[in-house]
Amino acid sequence: MEIIKSSENKKFKSLKKLLTKKERENTKTFLIEGKNIIEEAKKYNKILTYITDDINKIEDNIFYIDKKLKESLSSLKNSNEDIALVKYLEKKEISSNTILLIDNVRDPSNLGTILRTCLAFGVKDIVLSENTVDLYNSKTLRASEGAIFSLNILRDNLLNFISKHKEYKVLSTSLKANDLSALDNTKKIIVIGNEGNGVSKEILDISDEYLKIPIKNIDSLNVAIATSIILYENSK
Amino acid sequence: MEIIKSSENKKFKSLKKLLTKKERENTKTFLIEGKNIIEEAKKYNKILTYITDDINKIEDNIFYIDKKLKESLSSLKNSNEDIALVKYLEKKEISSNTILLIDNVRDPSNLGTILRTCLAFGVKDIVLSENTVDLYNSKTLRASEGAIFSLNILRDNLLNFISKHKEYKVLSTSLKANDLSALDNTKKIIVIGNEGNGVSKEILDISDEYLKIPIKNIDSLNVAIATSIILYENSK
Repeated sequence: MEIIKSSENKKFKSLKKLLTKKERENTKTFLIEGKNIIEEAKKYNKILTYITDDINKIEDNIFYIDKKLKESLSSLKNSNEDIALVKYLEKKEISSNTILLIDNVRDPSNLGTILRTCLAFGVKDIVLSENTVDLYNSKTLRASEGAIFSLNILRDNLLNFISKHKEYKVLSTSLKANDLSALDNTKKIIVIGNEGNGVSKEILDISDEYLKIPIKNIDSLNVAIATSIILYENSK
Repeated sequence: MEIIKSSENKKFKSLKKLLTKKERENTKTFLIEGKNIIEEAKKYNKILTYITDDINKIEDNIFYIDKKLKESLSSLKNSNEDIALVKYLEKKEISSNTILLIDNVRDPSNLGTILRTCLAFGVKDIVLSENTVDLYNSKTLRASEGAIFSLNILRDNLLNFISKHKEYKVLSTSLKANDLSALDNTKKIIVIGNEGNGVSKEILDISDEYLKIPIKNIDSLNVAIATSIILYENSK
């Protein structure tokens, strides 16, 4: 067994490049880190290579590297977690009665937390707008806690997507609503929006109904919090 | 008007020290950053000194420093926000029917998000366990979006606190519950727990009832998400 120690190693260099979004897009692969998410990826048969500094670890396709090199692939300080190289997710047909559309969410931890909550409330079809943060960002992946492998996550122009799914009512979060009663619809697209600005005007204009969580004292909730409350209410 | 440029300036050095928890505790003061939170602090008359590199800014008690020094007081990269020196919050008598106890929450952003949500659902009395993350951590403050100035936040031994509030039912989040029906109680202490381990055994043992959000597919939600759903349900 060979333990790679040189940062000039070809395979190591190709892994290191995956810290950039561009290279992830080119190769349709990404890195994940930590026991739980690696377990999930394994369940779904997504792992191409395990990357570890633990010579006692035995799996197919292990790439052994020393601690220093492994740390340089990590997005965390002083991480002791294993890493894996994984294939991009596949896109499936939309099959559920509730679809979540995410319109320009910018914070990767917010996106990851929303995805984890989607899985908890059984919402499996999710569409990211073109300007929503990268799904394969290390912070998105960490906050999602491995939920991404069980979900069907598309990226599309949201107006386009809506126009192709006319059988669904479109419910957008908006300050002009009073409550969550619009969730009564059976087949629904729920749209949540940007941290600062909410759902974009173009989508508000074509929405059928609106959603607002009744709150006091402040104007808005964090977008992951608001989404979770909506999905919780929708699951009841 | 003098613009301080030297990192050896005495006042600057004393501000810089406030980046440590120890110095904040010693002086009972802390730094806040950003327009919204500064507005909130001003409303509550908490600001001792404004710290800015904008010579057009006029307020009482301004400390003008150059951009580089200001950046070194910031917890953000390339921040252009003003900073203010603020007095610690005062503790008030408990006055509400719902009290939130936070047992060993470690992530400052989680704590801040929880506090913002407390305000949105009208829960104003909050008790932090001794091992819960620092309230005056810059990440806590940022995620709280200024909510802290409208809340009554104590830090106490939670068992002690519970023993002194016998008129309240104690409801802890726990996997052994089935739902949120225990929220029906009028005077209640809600206990939420650590990110990995939940509410500590000592508190579970003396709790009157238990709370669990019905979820599928995964074992748990992020603690800020779970707390928000509980406070939302409690507000209905």
